[in-house]
Parts: sequence; C-alpha cells; structure tokens
Amino acid sequence: MSGGAAGLRAAVLGTGSWGTTFGAVLADAGCEVALWGRDAATCEAITQEHRNERYLPGIDLPEGMTASTDARAVLDGADLVAIAIPSQSVRATLEPLREHFPAGAVAVSLMKGVELATDRRMSQVVAEALALPADQVAVVSGPNLAREIAERQPTATVVASTSEQTAALVARACASSYFRPYTNDDVVGVELCGAVKNVIALAVGISQGRGLGYNTMATVITRGLVEISRLGLALGAQPATFPGLAGMGDLMATCASPDSRNHTLGVHLGRGMTLAEALEATGGTAEGVKSSRSVLELARSVGVEMPITHAVVQVLHEGLPVEELAPLLLSRPHKAERV
Amino acid sequence: MSGGAAGLRAAVLGTGSWGTTFGAVLADAGCEVALWGRDAATCEAITQEHRNERYLPGIDLPEGMTASTDARAVLDGADLVAIAIPSQSVRATLEPLREHFPAGAVAVSLMKGVELATDRRMSQVVAEALALPADQVAVVSGPNLAREIAERQPTATVVASTSEQTAALVARACASSYFRPYTNDDVVGVELCGAVKNVIALAVGISQGRGLGYNTMATVITRGLVEISRLGLALGAQPATFPGLAGMGDLMATCASPDSRNHTLGVHLGRGMTLAEALEATGGTAEGVKSSRSVLELARSVGVEMPITHAVVQVLHEGLPVEELAPLLLSRPHKAERV
Repeated sequence: MSGGAAGLRAAVLGTGSWGTTFGAVLADAGCEVALWGRDAATCEAITQEHRNERYLPGIDLPEGMTASTDARAVLDGADLVAIAIPSQSVRATLEPLREHFPAGAVAVSLMKGVELATDRRMSQVVAEALALPADQVAVVSGPNLAREIAERQPTATVVASTSEQTAALVARACASSYFRPYTNDDVVGVELCGAVKNVIALAVGISQGRGLGYNTMATVITRGLVEISRLGLALGAQPATFPGLAGMGDLMATCASPDSRNHTLGVHLGRGMTLAEALEATGGTAEGVKSSRSVLELARSVGVEMPITHAVVQVLHEGLPVEELAPLLLSRPHKAERV
Repeated sequence: MSGGAAGLRAAVLGTGSWGTTFGAVLADAGCEVALWGRDAATCEAITQEHRNERYLPGIDLPEGMTASTDARAVLDGADLVAIAIPSQSVRATLEPLREHFPAGAVAVSLMKGVELATDRRMSQVVAEALALPADQVAVVSGPNLAREIAERQPTATVVASTSEQTAALVARACASSYFRPYTNDDVVGVELCGAVKNVIALAVGISQGRGLGYNTMATVITRGLVEISRLGLALGAQPATFPGLAGMGDLMATCASPDSRNHTLGVHLGRGMTLAEALEATGGTAEGVKSSRSVLELARSVGVEMPITHAVVQVLHEGLPVEELAPLLLSRPHKAERV
C-alpha cells in the first residue's frame, strides 16, 4: 500500500508525542504534512532540525514535515486533519478553527477519553466542534505507543469510521512498510476501548505499585476488558471490537509498557503518593484520572456495573486507601466468567 | 470459602515449581496434602524443612505438607490427585501408577501441552493412562505464575471439568483467601488455551529478543488469541473461554513475565542463539518447543490457519532465520480483524 498516499495533504493539530509521531507516519506514507502547535520553538525545531526533543528525544523526523503556529495556514488545502490535543480541551481548541476547516476534509481523532461535562466520545466532540457529519470523522486507535512507532517499529492499528470511504482514505494516507491500518466501522466500540483502557491501566499500575505481580496484572486486564465490553455492548458497540487491536491490543500495550503515563501514575499511587504528588511526578496529566469519572457516569446511565473502574474512582476521588483496592480488583459479583 | 476443604486428602504427583506450589495451595485451603517426587532429598526437604529450594527458593511451605518417593503411600486414600509432571512423560509416568490410583478419586491435570505422538490434550492422556472416565478428571488453568502464588499473592484461576460435581470438588479443595477458583465446563477450550499460549509466548519472546517493543508484543498476543480461538472453535470449545482467565489471562501473564521459560527461550532465539543453545540456557525444557508442532498438526487436521504458530515452527524446526519472523507475525491473510 506504500505510496498510496502520494498527493494527499495532511494537517496535524498538536505537536505532542502522538501528534508528532502520527505526522511522521503520514509523511513516511507519502503525504505532504504540516503540524500546528502553540509553541513557536517546537514548531521551528520540527521544521528546521526535524526534531521534537521534548516529546521524542533522539528521533529523526521526516525532512519534508513542517510545523507552524499559524493554524489557518496549516489547515489550508488539507485533505485530512488529524487531531492530537488533550481530550478535555478539544472542544475549546477546535471551535475557533471551525471557519478555517477545509471543506470536505476528513477529521481524524487521535484522542482517547470522554469529555467530562458532556460524557461525549472524542469523535463526537470533534464533529460537534467542527460542525461535521459523523461520516466525515475517523478514529485511529490500537496498540500504538508513540515512541515505538516514531522508531519505525512495525505496528498495526485500527481506523474506524461510520463511512467506509472515510476509513479507507485515512488508511491509505497512513499505510507504510511499518504502519498497517485495518479498517473498522465500529466507532463506538473503538473509542470506548480507548477511553476506558487508561482507567484499567491505572488499576494495573496501582496493584503493581503495591508489589503484586503478573498474575494480578493479567487478571485485572482480563476482567477490565470484560467490563469495557459490557459497557460497549450496552452502548451499541460490536462484540468483535473488544478482543481486537483497538481493544485487547491497546489495553495490553498500555498496561505492559513502563512508559505509559496512566500506568506510571498508578504505580506512584500504589506506593503511597497522594494523587497530587503522583500527578506532579508524572508531569501533570493522565487521561485516566479525568476519564474514570466520566466512564463511571456513562456506565451508570445505562445500568452497567464496572467494578474495576468504580474501585479506581474510589481511590482517586473518594479517599479509598490503596491497600483496599487489590481485594476489590479480584472480587467479582458473579461466579461465572462471562460478560 | 476458606475451610471448605477440611477433611479432604490430596496427593500431588510432581515436586517441581507448580506441583509444589499447588500442594501448598491445597494445604492452605485446608486439605491434608502429600507430594510424590523422584528425588529423595527434595522430598525430605519439603517434609522436614518445608522448603523446595531448587524450584521455590526462599518460600516457606505449609508445615503439614509432606513429600515422599513412595507413590503408593502418597496415593493411598486421596480424594483428589493433582498431576504436575512434564507433559511428554505423563502417560509413561502414570500408567504404572494406575493400579494404586484410589477408587473414586478425582484426577486434576496441572499440565499444559499436547502429547506429541497422539495429539491428545493432557486431560485425555491422564484419563487414558489411569483408565478414568472424563467426568472424573479436572483441569486447573489461569494466569498462575507459580512463584507469585507461592508468595500467596491474590490469584484467580479456572477449574474445568465435564462434570460440574468434579469441578466443584476441586474448587472447594483449593479455594483460600488468596486463591480463587472459578468453575467452567469447557475442558477443550481451557486446555487448548494452555497448550498454545506457550507457542505464542515463544513468538513474543523472539520479537522482544529482536528489539521490538510493546506494540509488537500486544499485536502478537492479540492475534495469537485469535488463532487459538479459531482452533478451539473448530474443535468444539466455547467462545467465552478465550477472553477469560484461562485464555487471555494466562496468555498475558505468560507473555509479560520475564520468568516464563518459553518467553525467555524466545528472547534467546531472537538474540541469535541456536535452539540447542537457547534450550541449554533456559534449563533444557520449554513446553512450547515440543507443543508447537503438535498444535500445528492439530490445526491442519481440522483445516484451521495459525500463522503465528506456523512461523514459530518454521523458526524452531525448519531453519527459518529469526529476522524473517517479525514480518510474518504482523502480516495477516485477511484484512478484517475477525476470528
């Protein structure tokens, strides 16, 4: 499929680790790529030195990829616009850019989470903020640790959209010898997996911080995927998404990697830090901390039990001591293993 | 459930790491436990010093647990007989013990693998060697790294039997504050997961030995579970077993733990050792090396494709260079993600 992206123009909003990496993926696939960021020095380093030392130290970025603080110029003429900004600021960042969004372009959400105020999934927030129909929005998700992809390690991912044509365009734009996209029409399932996995990663981190090993890790991930599936099915997702790359795959990569921010924050909590201390130690943000409450609200609104998510919310926001978490993680309301 | 095992007598055949650990689990649950092993010094140390330094260094074993080289004495009067011996020697070891097997006792297979000569699952080999009906045999499997259980870390497991009563007896015999059994009637699914996971762990190890990270690991595990499910469904297993503790749970614990022998052997291969060198470096045995061929034969006999297993067989037994494995692991015959 390499080379199928020739002639496509891509904009990426966000010059963090995943935005920069996905820009490099698009450029390596053959797209003409421009990034938008708020920090002028970062943008200049990306354009001139092909480096983003803050987020991807030591990585050589594609030479043709540029970055700018001028959103209008970056968006101009783009066929697709990928968005990688913190999930709780998506709406406020995108709304002022609506008038510059290129007519007919596809928006690609690279974000994972649920908007706190509205319980909306990221693709819904993107569609609303940019006034786009759902068919013009796609989601990319999978076992996609940015650093490894930036090193051009072989990686598979899922491109989901309600429109087959939109998913195919995005797949064509990012496919290369090291990056393999698979299309899927289950946007709800793919996004829920992405949002809840950070909460499960917090639970895994906490149990590891308490000194528990791989048996517990595997059990929490297995039972975590069951509760994600339960929520997803109640919200109309397709069962096959959960054991796939965007479900089990992403969950596993996130929980196994010592570099995952949610996982690391959990480890700090497990070792006895307060939430404030743990947030400070991990650089101030971890999606799961905010998403955990939205996910639990969403689950309650459809009458679904999510015991691991609930236990994480109790530890993060309701003062439950971490030493009381492990028994909650392994206990289950039912004796059978089923969803 | 603790204490439900009071009055039960259990024999364990095998004083390796898992046999000794499961004996301790049974003893902690309240059973009277005797182990059988071939090495007199190991048996004496277990009985007198409550230690098995070779396999579980530093672990204090239950004081009442004894071990002996006299199989007849160990088997006498047992209500259940757990078996933890190398999978390829099960038949030859058990057949001479058939006449001493206590009438009406339940046999519990703790082994994972497929018998090379016959393609039989371990519970089938046990039933044949001891001349027992399937209803008198159970299987225990899950994310159960022995060392962590021996440390009494909280762990969940699956007890599978075609007889609900047999599964319930075994669950009662091993349930304690740190060990939680869940019953399941899908013996075929549980055993296939246990047999194939070692092959997938080899693939994960090889890719890690080649320097690939968590994205690849998660992708190989995810796709690995898909091919295990495909084989299992063709052989009559139940779909719900694969995303459960004995499927996904065990696969993940095995692939994530640096202590897993199959995983470690794969890492050595990935770094360039020959199979003979890697076997020597890991202590001479790794179930997946032998099972990989049996699993592939089984898959061929029912017309199921198992690309990861096939690639592992090619590396182990057909001279495929390890550097050619990674592309095989990520390529797939179909574009869709489904089973």
